[in-house]
Amino acid sequence: HTKEMNEKDLASLKVNQNRLMEDIHFTSKWGTGQVWGTAPTETGMSRLSLSDADKKARDWFVETTQALGCNTTIDEMGNIFAIRPGLRNDGPPTFVGSHLDTQPTGGRYDGILGVTAGVEMLKVLADYWVETEYPVGVVNWTNEEGARFPISMLSSGVWSGHIPLSTAHALREVHPGTATLSSELSRIGYLGTVPASYEAVPMAAHFELHIEQGPLLESTSRKIGIVKGVQAYRWYTVNVTGQDCHTGTTDFENRADALLAAAKMILHSHRLATKRGALASTGILNLKPGSTNTVPGSVSLSLDIRAPADSTVDMLEADILADFARIAAGEEVDGISEGCTPGRPCEVSFTTDSVSPAVKFHPDCIHAVTEAAASALGPEAEKLTMEMVSGAGHDSVYTSKRVPTSMIFVPCRDGISHNPREYTSPEDCAVGAQVLLQAVVRYDRM
Amino acid sequence: HTKEMNEKDLASLKVNQNRLMEDIHFTSKWGTGQVWGTAPTETGMSRLSLSDADKKARDWFVETTQALGCNTTIDEMGNIFAIRPGLRNDGPPTFVGSHLDTQPTGGRYDGILGVTAGVEMLKVLADYWVETEYPVGVVNWTNEEGARFPISMLSSGVWSGHIPLSTAHALREVHPGTATLSSELSRIGYLGTVPASYEAVPMAAHFELHIEQGPLLESTSRKIGIVKGVQAYRWYTVNVTGQDCHTGTTDFENRADALLAAAKMILHSHRLATKRGALASTGILNLKPGSTNTVPGSVSLSLDIRAPADSTVDMLEADILADFARIAAGEEVDGISEGCTPGRPCEVSFTTDSVSPAVKFHPDCIHAVTEAAASALGPEAEKLTMEMVSGAGHDSVYTSKRVPTSMIFVPCRDGISHNPREYTSPEDCAVGAQVLLQAVVRYDRM
Ligand SMILES: NC(=O)NCCC(=O)O
Ligand SMILES: NC(=O)NCCC(=O)O
Repeated sequence: HTKEMNEKDLASLKVNQNRLMEDIHFTSKWGTGQVWGTAPTETGMSRLSLSDADKKARDWFVETTQALGCNTTIDEMGNIFAIRPGLRNDGPPTFVGSHLDTQPTGGRYDGILGVTAGVEMLKVLADYWVETEYPVGVVNWTNEEGARFPISMLSSGVWSGHIPLSTAHALREVHPGTATLSSELSRIGYLGTVPASYEAVPMAAHFELHIEQGPLLESTSRKIGIVKGVQAYRWYTVNVTGQDCHTGTTDFENRADALLAAAKMILHSHRLATKRGALASTGILNLKPGSTNTVPGSVSLSLDIRAPADSTVDMLEADILADFARIAAGEEVDGISEGCTPGRPCEVSFTTDSVSPAVKFHPDCIHAVTEAAASALGPEAEKLTMEMVSGAGHDSVYTSKRVPTSMIFVPCRDGISHNPREYTSPEDCAVGAQVLLQAVVRYDRM
Repeated sequence: HTKEMNEKDLASLKVNQNRLMEDIHFTSKWGTGQVWGTAPTETGMSRLSLSDADKKARDWFVETTQALGCNTTIDEMGNIFAIRPGLRNDGPPTFVGSHLDTQPTGGRYDGILGVTAGVEMLKVLADYWVETEYPVGVVNWTNEEGARFPISMLSSGVWSGHIPLSTAHALREVHPGTATLSSELSRIGYLGTVPASYEAVPMAAHFELHIEQGPLLESTSRKIGIVKGVQAYRWYTVNVTGQDCHTGTTDFENRADALLAAAKMILHSHRLATKRGALASTGILNLKPGSTNTVPGSVSLSLDIRAPADSTVDMLEADILADFARIAAGEEVDGISEGCTPGRPCEVSFTTDSVSPAVKFHPDCIHAVTEAAASALGPEAEKLTMEMVSGAGHDSVYTSKRVPTSMIFVPCRDGISHNPREYTSPEDCAVGAQVLLQAVVRYDRM
């Protein structure tokens, strides 16, 4: 009952907007987050990787894709690959991939849109009785956010061979807890036996639909971002050590105030990034002992630095390593300590938690997306698309190191992401899913 | 078998140093904290108010003082008053008081020395079969540290009528938890029925022995500080609200970064305090949502400001209220934002958690301490004592508002306190306890 397609048949394949939105909102009942509006869909998401809610979303993904005729494979990282056979099965599948985990105060679209659009692609292929040349697949990658286990794009990184499996399995939760990634994989029943590797689960290509998470498409009234690459970023944990002392009896001269030093570092990293046209951000800060009348002797903070060019990130890192050491030692750095009372020195140490160099996507995939957008958007396509570089990391970063890869962005309101109010209109979601579908079937025939 | 005493008998009363140190170290097994040395006594304390460990220390206090012939009274704040009858019982007791609770990473002397020295006083009076003119007592005050429930000197403040009982009972733990002060009092069995009030449990006077918690006695080779008063201090919670957003896709212009604003506030409060010769400290900082790649939309921090004069604290408070609002709004304040990229405004709000004006102790009590020090230290007394003002708050602050009060300080190594390494030598502890004993018996006869 299936058929081969010509160019016209191919263009006639259409995603079902309502069905796609139903999948997004239906699956959002697992890990519903902050309420921000009155409509039932106006809540954020809080579906940390490998939580109970994530397990339910995974179960849905497995059941749904199996019901659509896919074979599902779960690897040692809990990555779930759903593969729909093709006319010929002597070549690897063309994959659509993204992630079902979210930030602790995330939205309904980041990652979720990409996976549900992949499922919608499978439904459209089934609706139209389409047989692709080669298999096509949809993959749900584990712990893309890096919000619970502190390496982003973790499991595509293991698959591509860039992050050792042992490192990934041993990762501990960011927030004081005892769980490791592997203990949580076991607990929810998603510790597979297939090696997490591009050799064990090969791909012909990887396409990913994602919300932009920035303001450019919306502010220029475009519908589709043709993503040509991803900026570089690195994550560090910075540990500052001073000495606990009494806030009422210890004069400033005799303090080694780890929090005051950390405050200077946070401010200074912002100044250094400004100077280099880069970004620097601290999202986590824990201190000890945490008492109103005790000066903290120990502070640990995350640092996330980004820039389009690896060389900029290199320079910013060098600035930060040098200047934080001087700040900790109590030296004056660019006026940061002006007006302060000199105190006793603190110590600072750094751990590099992850490194993601700048990435350029594959011209064949970019071409497939461009053609797909032309087909989906019609004569206005050129005005409604733009080429862009992603500010955020995505699993496509790691897949691109092994197989042709590219991404499709859709606008999100006010550029807001990693926030419960993250929002992309149903129309924009559907256009994105349509371009994704078209890109995959086109690539399959290439 | 008891006797009245003349001046010579009185001077012959001697505390037992070994017995005192045994009580300190024996009771430190309840809530033992960080190990910092190899000797069994070289650990800190972590005995938060109304914890299970605190309950055990309280039970010891009740049993020990009852065995020494005291009647014990527990009030609605869990304050424990142990009263030893006098020759005449038509006047209120002269009290020794301090606290058995500690900081989360505290030492073995802060508060504990004061209570155990009170118990040692009872033991000496029993050894020598002394009957005092009027009753004498020892009180263990609840939650002096303010480390678990965020008002320091809480229960002496209720006793003196300066903090409402309802406010105190409703206080919640500083660190996310569900317990209130009254639920914890009930839980450990120390919610008494006697009103927490200077009218229900009157005192003739209140004497408190404490470690200095600062470096002055040690650095000038003195043994005893004759404390004439306590500096002013105030505690606030500062809430900074911005907006969660993605660290990789949100440029600095579009961020309302609550942590960057908080970092500027911490640094600026230090500068303002430096300018006014005052102190400003942040010991607690919590942020949300707490993810490496999400700019925090919400930060809450403690602020503790202190100065000898109330007027200085007034001015510093005014500076801080005005400047923090400007910093949150994104205005430039004394160069704090130099080199920063202007972003979107945050909001800031303040809660005043506690206010402790500057205090002067009572001349009669100061006189009794001076005489007691002369008796304890002999001809060298003048060289070995100094008058001083306390940088830290103590329960004596509140008792002084209702009854004649003063304090005795002993040196502590390197001025370190609120730290596991807090240390006072056995000899210095004993000299302090001796002065305390002498001050009480002298005051009793005045
Ligand atoms: N898309 C996304 O939010 N990925 C998380 C990795 C990052 O922080 O860029
Ligand atoms: N003595 C002491 O540490 N008291 C706690 C109250 C304060 O912070 O000063």
